[in-house]
Amino acid sequence: MPIYNFSAGPAVLPQPVITQIQAELPSFQGSGMSILEISHRSDLFAQVLQDAEQDLRDLMAIPDNYHVLFFQGGGTLQFTAAPLNLAPHHRIGLLDSGHWAQRAADEAKRVGTKVTILGSSAANHFNQLPTVVQPIDQSLDYIHLTTNNTIEGTMMTRLPATGQVPLVADMSSNFLGEPYQVSDFGLIFAGAQKNLGPAGLTIVIVRDDLIGQVANLPSMLDYQLFADKNSMFNTPPVFAIYAAGLVLKWLKAQGGLNVMTARNHAKAALLYDFLDQSQLFTNPVKTSDRSTMNVPFVTGQADLDAAVIQGAREHGLLNLKGHRLVGGMRASLYNAMPLAGVQALVDYLAAFEAHHR
Amino acid sequence: MPIYNFSAGPAVLPQPVITQIQAELPSFQGSGMSILEISHRSDLFAQVLQDAEQDLRDLMAIPDNYHVLFFQGGGTLQFTAAPLNLAPHHRIGLLDSGHWAQRAADEAKRVGTKVTILGSSAANHFNQLPTVVQPIDQSLDYIHLTTNNTIEGTMMTRLPATGQVPLVADMSSNFLGEPYQVSDFGLIFAGAQKNLGPAGLTIVIVRDDLIGQVANLPSMLDYQLFADKNSMFNTPPVFAIYAAGLVLKWLKAQGGLNVMTARNHAKAALLYDFLDQSQLFTNPVKTSDRSTMNVPFVTGQADLDAAVIQGAREHGLLNLKGHRLVGGMRASLYNAMPLAGVQALVDYLAAFEAHHR
Repeated sequence: MPIYNFSAGPAVLPQPVITQIQAELPSFQGSGMSILEISHRSDLFAQVLQDAEQDLRDLMAIPDNYHVLFFQGGGTLQFTAAPLNLAPHHRIGLLDSGHWAQRAADEAKRVGTKVTILGSSAANHFNQLPTVVQPIDQSLDYIHLTTNNTIEGTMMTRLPATGQVPLVADMSSNFLGEPYQVSDFGLIFAGAQKNLGPAGLTIVIVRDDLIGQVANLPSMLDYQLFADKNSMFNTPPVFAIYAAGLVLKWLKAQGGLNVMTARNHAKAALLYDFLDQSQLFTNPVKTSDRSTMNVPFVTGQADLDAAVIQGAREHGLLNLKGHRLVGGMRASLYNAMPLAGVQALVDYLAAFEAHHR
Repeated sequence: MPIYNFSAGPAVLPQPVITQIQAELPSFQGSGMSILEISHRSDLFAQVLQDAEQDLRDLMAIPDNYHVLFFQGGGTLQFTAAPLNLAPHHRIGLLDSGHWAQRAADEAKRVGTKVTILGSSAANHFNQLPTVVQPIDQSLDYIHLTTNNTIEGTMMTRLPATGQVPLVADMSSNFLGEPYQVSDFGLIFAGAQKNLGPAGLTIVIVRDDLIGQVANLPSMLDYQLFADKNSMFNTPPVFAIYAAGLVLKWLKAQGGLNVMTARNHAKAALLYDFLDQSQLFTNPVKTSDRSTMNVPFVTGQADLDAAVIQGAREHGLLNLKGHRLVGGMRASLYNAMPLAGVQALVDYLAAFEAHHR
């Protein structure tokens, strides 16, 4: 029985990447040392880091005036780093699109930043994206938004007009899963453990004129220092960068982000089309705002939801339990999830529905 | 030809650990998912985390009133976290024993902490440990020291008397390599990439009455929050914790820290005895302060040092180049380095010396 892992993250990785990591684990590049044992100052790792950056630049067409930085600490550490680096006047705007946006607001306040909500869909249970209240105060340091709301299942593809105020995007759960123009943003960050690799790595892409404004930041939160030191001020997460680098090479071999996006839209359409015709299952999200990455759905009865999840597990369809904040089920359809996995899920749900009506 | 990796970190890991990681990489515990793909909220990972903590508690005999926390960001992030959490009066003392102590002082100052140097061996090129100036101001929040100076090759086994002022130890490079009494410290932290596992994980061991004193810290720097959330406020570095957990089980199987310490002292004695009788090689460190983990040595001639390193590489003795701050050679003899590796190094150095006199 094939296994399909619908976890929201850490999540499924491309099978060829797992196979390659396994094959070369005892001796990286014939060195006699594991990738787990090599010095971050070695030529071997220098090449890994350089390739990962260049492949990411190629895939996202990152302009030369943007730095690519490799951090630890997940998106949560960036909720602190972003205001420390990019908000010298301690005033930011934020789109309140759900749980992770609220977490970002909370962390910004902890470092003394005033956060103005420019739009919220809280009254709609975050089942749609917030509408931005115009005009936008042009004295704000930046505006934070979440391009994909992992828990609520919404995704932003059309960006709000913000005039001269830079956009800061938490892109954790649709990074490399949807094509964005990097130049539309001042800062993009993303935890790796959705579309990019194992947990323990966070990518930061930042416009060079926005950093270096604030002195005496803690080193591990200082974008300018990371840029100056090529993300090697201290020991970086060597293995996570290596694994992410393999995923980036896999993405290029698949044909790049346009190919992945087309596949992701096809996978999502297959599941949404099923849910929309179903008499048992419903997805609560406004059609235009639906995520291609994370699809929450419910039967409306907690015991039936539990039966769906349990039966799915027995069919090799794993990790479908919804986030505790919304309940029900959630299927995450990241890049490494094949169409066959979504088809298997739809077939199972259809059979479940036929049996339980 | 066997390969011996003398890197100062990331460093050699036990071969059985590498073998096990490789064997179970495609399907962790028969789940059909790689350890790289499993949710940090899964029962599978809960067991990994619980075992890692318990095995560490067993090995170090950690008292119940100490928390064991799993962070990212290396020792450097703890240089910031320690003063933020444990220095509510913004005044700490510090033993200036070398590069990493100075880095800790620098980061403490960046978050507004006054750092008083209580002793320095800078005038001795850090070739010995500093002498602590008594009496110690009892109003200091804590005193920071570095138990092992990775670059300079000194190690502190006798701790200074500090009265009621807690000790904070950066134990990164001799964590689990030398037995310390946890109750002698208020806080111990250590980057994993020396004796414990791959880069990307930092262990924090902290006495419970010392935390929770400071409100509104950034979450990723908040010891109390990490304690309350069992190190799972956000996604932890799953793979690094798993790998470290395997190393901890290996350490237990070897017989624990007393056995490892005895082996480490025997390995270090073999190398120091050779260096001390050599007419070519010298170790500059005061005998009583020598590290069992990191052994710097020189010929006194840069071109000869380069020949030693190049010849060693051809003999499978890797990563012997000294840190750029001190030059020459450095052999790191962490737990996973077998005695046979040190013997091979001594044999090579003896042959080199015989050939070059």
